Amino acid sequence: MWNIREAAESDRDAIWLIFHAVVASGDTYAFHPSISRDEALAYWLHPSCRSYVAERDGSVAGTYLIKPNQPGLGSHIANAAFMVAPASQGRGLGRAMGEHCLAEAHRLGFRAMQFNLVVSTNEPAVRLWRNLGFEIVGTLPGAFRHARRGLVDAYVMFRPLGDAPLDAPSRPT
Amino acid sequence: MWNIREAAESDRDAIWLIFHAVVASGDTYAFHPSISRDEALAYWLHPSCRSYVAERDGSVAGTYLIKPNQPGLGSHIANAAFMVAPASQGRGLGRAMGEHCLAEAHRLGFRAMQFNLVVSTNEPAVRLWRNLGFEIVGTLPGAFRHARRGLVDAYVMFRPLGDAPLDAPSRPT
Repeated sequence: MWNIREAAESDRDAIWLIFHAVVASGDTYAFHPSISRDEALAYWLHPSCRSYVAERDGSVAGTYLIKPNQPGLGSHIANAAFMVAPASQGRGLGRAMGEHCLAEAHRLGFRAMQFNLVVSTNEPAVRLWRNLGFEIVGTLPGAFRHARRGLVDAYVMFRPLGDAPLDAPSRPT
Repeated sequence: MWNIREAAESDRDAIWLIFHAVVASGDTYAFHPSISRDEALAYWLHPSCRSYVAERDGSVAGTYLIKPNQPGLGSHIANAAFMVAPASQGRGLGRAMGEHCLAEAHRLGFRAMQFNLVVSTNEPAVRLWRNLGFEIVGTLPGAFRHARRGLVDAYVMFRPLGDAPLDAPSRPT
């Protein structure tokens, strides 16, 4: 149904349109609602990220990225970010990209995935990530300045990938 | 006792010596233990950071930085990082910089301070931050690849600054 593939140079316009529409509402991402196209694309297509798009009938309707959440000794934990064009929301694209992303992150060797700032009032996102196996492992009081509601809490969400336990030493020395 | 001031260009050598010594042990920071001088200084003295050094008798023994933990709608929460030269550890310099940092962050208008990856086995750090009013608001399973112990948990720690509650809308609309 959705074709999800790595982003190409030719996707820059489509990614910016989605990014701009999503951040303009100021209710889901920390990016400043008036972020410039150059800043947005520099972030989303940064060399440290793998960026993907989801298309149907040749039209890009969503995009996501995977990257290490920390450098060096924290780089076995992935971070990811997802954006769906407003016209395509509510059609399962978030879930399709989420499942694709989890499989990709596992394939790339990451041991877990962490979201650092899930806005607590973004109920569809919180529900989706719970359904995909994420747990809320932390609550950040008033950490998000919601465009309409003022300061609201944000969640840290976390999900192991694969079967190897995260509490066992990977290389005992 | 300690003179704590903003870092200057002439502090680059001292900061790198401390940074290098601290990350080489691979037990407190995610930075790769073999990070280069250029990468380290680019991070520590990045334009988005305010960087400080602590000196005694003209000799720099510690350094810390403050920066927004997130862009835009999350930029009211500060992040900070601290490093003490091995020869000066255990002498109260971490606490002195921590107190200085909290005052600076408040003065700069931040509403809270958040640490994203406090290594759970770094007991002096966990104890210090608790003593300075931080709470563990999240636990990240196996999120730090400790040089000797393998994967160990990391904490998200958080502390409000000033008196304004973080759960009240700052700008009701």
